Order: sequence, then C-alpha cells, then structure tokens
Amino acid sequence: VDNHAKIVLYGVGLINGSLGLALKARGFAGRVVGIGRRAETLEIACEVGAVDEWTLDPADGLRQARLVVIGTPVDCVAATVKRLTEHAEPDALFTDVGSVKAGIVRDCARLAPTTHFVGAHPIAGSERMGAKAARADLFENAVCVLTPSTATHPEDVQRIHDLWERVGARVVEMSPEVHDALLAASSHLPHVVASALARVVADTVVDGRPALDFAAGGFRDTTRIAAGSVEMWTPILRENAVEIAAAVRRFSRELDTIADAIEADDADAIREWLRRSSSIRRRFEENPAHGF
Amino acid sequence: VDNHAKIVLYGVGLINGSLGLALKARGFAGRVVGIGRRAETLEIACEVGAVDEWTLDPADGLRQARLVVIGTPVDCVAATVKRLTEHAEPDALFTDVGSVKAGIVRDCARLAPTTHFVGAHPIAGSERMGAKAARADLFENAVCVLTPSTATHPEDVQRIHDLWERVGARVVEMSPEVHDALLAASSHLPHVVASALARVVADTVVDGRPALDFAAGGFRDTTRIAAGSVEMWTPILRENAVEIAAAVRRFSRELDTIADAIEADDADAIREWLRRSSSIRRRFEENPAHGF
Repeated sequence: VDNHAKIVLYGVGLINGSLGLALKARGFAGRVVGIGRRAETLEIACEVGAVDEWTLDPADGLRQARLVVIGTPVDCVAATVKRLTEHAEPDALFTDVGSVKAGIVRDCARLAPTTHFVGAHPIAGSERMGAKAARADLFENAVCVLTPSTATHPEDVQRIHDLWERVGARVVEMSPEVHDALLAASSHLPHVVASALARVVADTVVDGRPALDFAAGGFRDTTRIAAGSVEMWTPILRENAVEIAAAVRRFSRELDTIADAIEADDADAIREWLRRSSSIRRRFEENPAHGF
Repeated sequence: VDNHAKIVLYGVGLINGSLGLALKARGFAGRVVGIGRRAETLEIACEVGAVDEWTLDPADGLRQARLVVIGTPVDCVAATVKRLTEHAEPDALFTDVGSVKAGIVRDCARLAPTTHFVGAHPIAGSERMGAKAARADLFENAVCVLTPSTATHPEDVQRIHDLWERVGARVVEMSPEVHDALLAASSHLPHVVASALARVVADTVVDGRPALDFAAGGFRDTTRIAAGSVEMWTPILRENAVEIAAAVRRFSRELDTIADAIEADDADAIREWLRRSSSIRRRFEENPAHGF
C-alpha cells in the first residue's frame, strides 16, 4: 500500500474501523475516508479515529482513492462493488472483509468484470459490533485469508497481502471454496451452536424455575458469540448454506455419539470422548494457530 | 457457622480452595484443615492460603471438626462421607459441592443414615482446576443450591445456608431432582456441546488444511470449558445421565430446526432464529441471574 495513498473504507464497523485504526497506528500517512449509508455510524468512526473524514457521497469519497475496502454484510459486497465502480478511479483496487467468499468472488466477477477485486477475510472480531468496539491491535497474529481466482491480477493480490501484513496479520491464500468449507466449521458452526444453546437453556423451565437462573461461567463463555449481529450473521448462514448445514449435521452426529454413550453408561467411552476434547482444547490454548 | 469452629475441607480443588480463601477473607477465625489423598495438592492449598494446615490422616484432621465439606468428584462423595463418619464427631455436619445431587443425596442417606448431611452446589467454577486457581471472590453473586430431603434437619440446612451466604452466594433450596434437571441444561449441556465442537472442528481438514488453524475468538470462547477436568466431568455425565441425554436430544432437535431453515434458504426463519438467540444472550449479559 502506497503510504500516502487515499484509502476508502466502505461501511465502517468493527473490522473496517479496526483496519483504519491499525493503519494509523502502523504509520500509514495517507488519508482514510469512510463511506457508508448512515451518518451516525460514520461520525462514530471519525470520533474514534478510524477514519480521517467521511461522506455519504460515493463520487466524492472515491475520487483519487487507490484502495476500497468493503465492510458490508456479505450479501451486499458484490452489489456495492458494482455500484461504486462507476465512481471509482479505473485502477482503484477493491477488496472486502467478508466471512464467506465463494459467492462474493463469483458475483464480483459477474457484476463488475473489469473491476480489480481481491476477496479477503481477516479472521478476527467478536460479538461486539461497530466502530466503537474497534481496536488497533485486532489483527495482530490474526490469520487473513485471500481468495484470488485465476482472473485476479497477481500484483493486486500482492497489494492486499501487504495491507494485511502491515496491520499484523498472517496472510494465507486459498480458493474461495476451501475457505468457505474451513470457516463453516471453525467460525460459522460455533455461531450456530452458541445460538442453539442460548435457546435451549432459555426454553428449559423445571418446577417453575428457569434454567437460565442457574447458568454461570460455562454458559456465558459458550454462548457469548450468540449475541452477535443478526444483520451480519443471517447473510453468512445463507451464503454458506451448504457447508454450514453439512457442518451442523456432522456436529449432530457427534452429539449422538456421546448421548448414546451416556445412555449406555459406557464409562470408558465417555471418559475417552471427554479426554480427547479436553486435549484438543488445551493444545489450541497453548498454540492457537499451530499450523503456522 | 461458629466463627471459631474447625472446618474440614476434604479434597481441596478450585471450589473448596476458593471456599477456604473466601472464609478467611470474610473474617472467619476458626481453623480450616485440608484433608485429601495427595500431599502435593494439599501443600498447594496451604501455600495459597486456602487451608491453615493439612493432613492425609482423616482421624487426625476430623478431631473436633464441626463442619466437613466434601470436594471430591461427584461419584466419590457418598463413599467419602461414609468413610469419614467413623472418624468424625457425632454432631459433625457434612456437606458437599457437587454438580449432580440426586445420587449423592440418595447414597448418603443409604450409606451413612445417621450422619448429618446437606447436599449443596455452589454454581461457580471454570475450566481451571485446582487450589492454584482458587479465588476468594469466586462465590460473590453466585447461586448456591441446597437440596435437603425430608430427612434433613432444618438447623443443618440453616448452617449450610449461612456458610454460603457468608461467602457472598445467593442460596436457593430445591429438590435434588429439580436441581439435576436444571443443571443438565444450564451447565452439563454446555460442557457436552463445547466438547463436541472442539472435536468436530479438530476433525475438519479441507484440502490439507486443518480448520483449527482458522479458528479465532468465537471458537475459543465457545469451547473454553471443554478443557475442563475429565476426572470431574466423567462422573457428572454418568450420575446425571438421564437428564443430560434428554438435554442433548433437545439440543439436537434445535440444531435440526436451523439446519432445515438453512437448507431451505428460509431467510425469515433464519433471521428470527438468530434474533431470538441474540436477544436471549444479550439479556443474560445485562442481568446474569434475572430471576433473583
């Protein structure tokens, strides 16, 4: 990223807001401009220092911009790229931060075939939302996946690679389809599971007593991400439907296994099942991304 | 609790260790004695200040003790009560801290029918284990459930009630069976779910890439409790088998509901499902035990 370029962040929530803060913290000297649909949101992004200025007018915001990072829900990315392209410089490079990639990459190629676009997904974030929760260190040691297609220019990929390395991420390239299958398990399934757990516990009432009144740290941790944004997660579940549904079914079979062992009072099977889970989780804590 | 009495903590892990620390922090002036099977564990409990002294000899430790708190895994509580009774003062009051109650209450009445015993469960703790993780404030605003039977002396219940209120807990009484059905949903199900999730993600490899390498904060929170003690959790799953298996089957049906909606691409159903989960979880965060 040219250190004096103009960068546009379209939709300044937690991820784009943190990207703006991180770039400034790492000495980026160009202008960071926020564009979006709601003045209140952009004003907050400006107040926390994530953007230098903001506008609701794409033509104004995109003038002379070299890089445009789309931070909308995943179902709006491709349409936004198409809409912004007409106002952007011909050599402007578009990228995104969405958590599902195959649909976005396919739709961008179809809707805006001449636009320079590189699909990206910095794997960071939390149940917290909006630029108010943005943090300059959000991407430190995070993994950022790039999903170039055969049509993507290698120099465009390199620029997005540099962008994310600059804010502390470890960058990995893979196909959009491999990304979506991996994230269905590692991120989307946990969201579905946490959400289902919140519902089941809330629906349990015994002798007039709600089970929620007897929930503590375990429930709190296990369901934390269920509080996340419905506007962000609904399109994720729809765009990655096939992989997520398959992951949920695999998860159900795993539950059947342990429920069967519990009902059969198979002590060895229960102990071994818990032992492996505990061992997996402890190794993850010791070395969150051991493959890198 | 008589402020100058001698209290015995049998098995000094996270819960009993925190109880010892909390009693001292709240001005308890009597002696707290640790008993157990392993000198190393008791030495740690002594070092962190959870007990004043320790012994491996029950006869020695129980002399003149007024209160004995059993902190073993749930499948050892009743046998431990029976074994210790012969060394204890005739009026010594026994209680426990186990997370399943019906079996313990039934077995104590059967194995040690003349022993004063009140089943108790302070709902606190974490994936961390041992006296080293003990905290004097662990029970502040925690709920502690007492499960007296018709045979339990009311004055015994009152003493255990006072014990837990003294260290900051809100005390609730109910039958062991109601307790076990509630905790199956609010605590045991989350443990099973977190454990299953750790396994499913660990078992997902796409194009040679392990999904665990692409897991971040959501997976970390959702699976944290899976790291918990296998020695503690295996007997919990066995002792509360019927209720836990039923909770797991309810949870599976909830997953079927959302998997069906995802496969049918029913946007309204997905959005409404996520909306309610998110709303439940946010209300829980604002008011963790709204029933009290």
